[in-house]
Amino acid sequence: MTLTKDLVVARTLLEIWPTLSTAHRIKQFRILSRPAAEELFLSLTATEQVELTHGLSDVEIRSWLRFLPPDDAADFIQKMPDERRLALLALLDERTRQEVVGLLAYADDAAGGLMNPEYIRLRPEIRVAEAIGYVRAQAKAHVKIYYGYVLDAKQRLLGVVSIRQLLLEPPNTLVRDIMRREFLTVRENTPGEEVAHLFSLHTQLMAVPVVDESGVVKGIVTHDDVATLLEKETTEDIQKIGGMEALDVPYFRAGFQQLIKKRAGWLTVLFLGEMFTATAMGYFEDEIAKAVVLALFVPLIISSGGNSGSQASTLIIRSLALQEIRLRDWWRVFGRELWSGLALGSILGSIGFLRIVIWQQWRPIYGEYYILVAFTVAFSLVGVVTWGTLSGSMLPFLLRRAGFDPASASAPFVATLVDVTGLIIYFSVASLLLSGTLL
Amino acid sequence: MTLTKDLVVARTLLEIWPTLSTAHRIKQFRILSRPAAEELFLSLTATEQVELTHGLSDVEIRSWLRFLPPDDAADFIQKMPDERRLALLALLDERTRQEVVGLLAYADDAAGGLMNPEYIRLRPEIRVAEAIGYVRAQAKAHVKIYYGYVLDAKQRLLGVVSIRQLLLEPPNTLVRDIMRREFLTVRENTPGEEVAHLFSLHTQLMAVPVVDESGVVKGIVTHDDVATLLEKETTEDIQKIGGMEALDVPYFRAGFQQLIKKRAGWLTVLFLGEMFTATAMGYFEDEIAKAVVLALFVPLIISSGGNSGSQASTLIIRSLALQEIRLRDWWRVFGRELWSGLALGSILGSIGFLRIVIWQQWRPIYGEYYILVAFTVAFSLVGVVTWGTLSGSMLPFLLRRAGFDPASASAPFVATLVDVTGLIIYFSVASLLLSGTLL
Repeated sequence: MTLTKDLVVARTLLEIWPTLSTAHRIKQFRILSRPAAEELFLSLTATEQVELTHGLSDVEIRSWLRFLPPDDAADFIQKMPDERRLALLALLDERTRQEVVGLLAYADDAAGGLMNPEYIRLRPEIRVAEAIGYVRAQAKAHVKIYYGYVLDAKQRLLGVVSIRQLLLEPPNTLVRDIMRREFLTVRENTPGEEVAHLFSLHTQLMAVPVVDESGVVKGIVTHDDVATLLEKETTEDIQKIGGMEALDVPYFRAGFQQLIKKRAGWLTVLFLGEMFTATAMGYFEDEIAKAVVLALFVPLIISSGGNSGSQASTLIIRSLALQEIRLRDWWRVFGRELWSGLALGSILGSIGFLRIVIWQQWRPIYGEYYILVAFTVAFSLVGVVTWGTLSGSMLPFLLRRAGFDPASASAPFVATLVDVTGLIIYFSVASLLLSGTLL
Repeated sequence: MTLTKDLVVARTLLEIWPTLSTAHRIKQFRILSRPAAEELFLSLTATEQVELTHGLSDVEIRSWLRFLPPDDAADFIQKMPDERRLALLALLDERTRQEVVGLLAYADDAAGGLMNPEYIRLRPEIRVAEAIGYVRAQAKAHVKIYYGYVLDAKQRLLGVVSIRQLLLEPPNTLVRDIMRREFLTVRENTPGEEVAHLFSLHTQLMAVPVVDESGVVKGIVTHDDVATLLEKETTEDIQKIGGMEALDVPYFRAGFQQLIKKRAGWLTVLFLGEMFTATAMGYFEDEIAKAVVLALFVPLIISSGGNSGSQASTLIIRSLALQEIRLRDWWRVFGRELWSGLALGSILGSIGFLRIVIWQQWRPIYGEYYILVAFTVAFSLVGVVTWGTLSGSMLPFLLRRAGFDPASASAPFVATLVDVTGLIIYFSVASLLLSGTLL
């Protein structure tokens, strides 16, 4: 009964974890029974695990560190301050220490850093019944049992056989005859994002082997290793789309200073960019003085450009992230977005035209040349929306081409870009249509 | 060798699938060998599978339909036009047909609609060796073998044992003694999003049983069933944040009309909302006529409000989606965002102030009262950014509270909301500071 209640507590804790203070977390963790604490500990991120251990003794830390599989232990040690690392490595048993040291050499978001060096090894010439025996012999708490990897004498990967298949085939079948000789592999330096994409394409895939140039297996990356990574990357994308630096931690875990820092940077850059609107408006000061009515529509026109640009950039950023669109597709996208922009601009332009003409009948505030003003607004909208749509859709391609993250083509970034050019389009159209009358 | 080459082709096809035309897809699919075609077919979404079968004969469709596990077969049939469904059901064998009909009754994004009715059943009083025998006997192409579900005589769930555990434990151990009596379950009507969240909290979890009110197992939902769902929901969120309706299909698969429809709706709504800026500006027409210099800063001020609002809303939307923040946290968020807004507003306000004062020394375009203008801009920025940050952070809470998707608090939506109020704040500050001088 204690166990049962404790596990429920552990799960509830996990749910509300991001909202708890560090002190509260440590306190709650320490009163859990070991099985419940283990359940909780395994579900935490490495950063959260490290934070928890600030409240634990070295003996306790050793116990938890040894409880983790080598890849997670490496992540844990990676998150520790440099001066603590050697002491922590010393807490591990000899074999795990060697594996962890090996893993620490990789970037923690490449396949080499994500992989678990322990996996089930099989030989091609054994029979299924024997293979099941080998699986049993190699199975430990740290090993994830989805596939057996069939190796030749030089440890090179010959084939893969799923445990399920071992259970299904007649016991005296040779492993060689049932193993798949076609399989996906990744290299140690394959970026985690690419590995994640592999799993999202092949939803049935549970693990992928990491091999070196000669085909020797260094470890396996399992689907749950990348699930966290994928969620993190998506959050980063979304925050960038919103026009801020990626926050890296849950909202309430970010300090106030950190929160301001991540937001103020981009906000200031955008503000500096947006200052060009004041400059642009300055050039048209005379026009505004002559026809104040023009100023009234400035927010409407520039925001329409910003909104259509934001739609286009978000659409393209996500499609690029899901690899529905490749870099080389930019020209096809350009054509589609040109027509989309013209269509959307025409819709808004018509509404804007009708708005001014109809409104004028009720409250004549737009002066005697209201029809010309209406045409100016309508044509400007077509131009600005088309321009916004095109800029918004092309910017992610340009950023990717230049080696940046396409998600940086945030809604506010595109809006700022389009605001300045939108003003120029608007006042140019106005000069053209209204010269001789209002201007 | 044919097999090998074919599988490589299948994988390449899968990669470029979203960019191919329907005709091209069917053509490529038909020239694949059966194993390669199977690999490809299983990795497609139900919609893509349905599309493929337009080019196949009924005999071929039967073969593919029978190849699918019942949950996927149900999804497949669900995507077919109503009038085709009965004919398709008739292609299934009796038992699967019953299962599929049962599944069709559920909403396809609830656990009942996602689940596979086939799973490994075990009895508590058997021994491990026997249990492995049962697993073998029940294993078929359609069954996902992660856990055995231990049922009582009335089919109620008593415990769960992983296949890995069966392999690890001594053969004569009783299943009852090693099964976990604490396990997660979901109900048939649990929303898919919640099931997905469960898997993302418990990354080690491979499958979760779906039980009815009396604890009888109706089926299991596996991690890959929700992976696709999760990706789809995230894409919808991102597209909503960008200010458009969710597109539901990859970019190039959406028809031109569909693309326009999904974008024009929100764009028009935003445009109509933004029209209030013209109305608001209309109220201040006299002020603008008297002090044209005020008009110059309109885009700068309203866009700063929009940008800070967009940051705040995106941050909160994602935190709500990841359940880092709950509805009841709104008050804590309010406090934090109020201070964030004041801090960010002060930063931008200071930059704006300096910009005007310094610029004036080089090119005196802001007139003799430029210091007052600079103060007007600075105080307005503090007000507008604080207001933008607060609106942006509170809007997702309000939407969720009212039963809508928080992601609808898109960057453009918040920007539009803030534009109108931003103008009022700006011109009010101006009236206060400049009356007697410029106004």
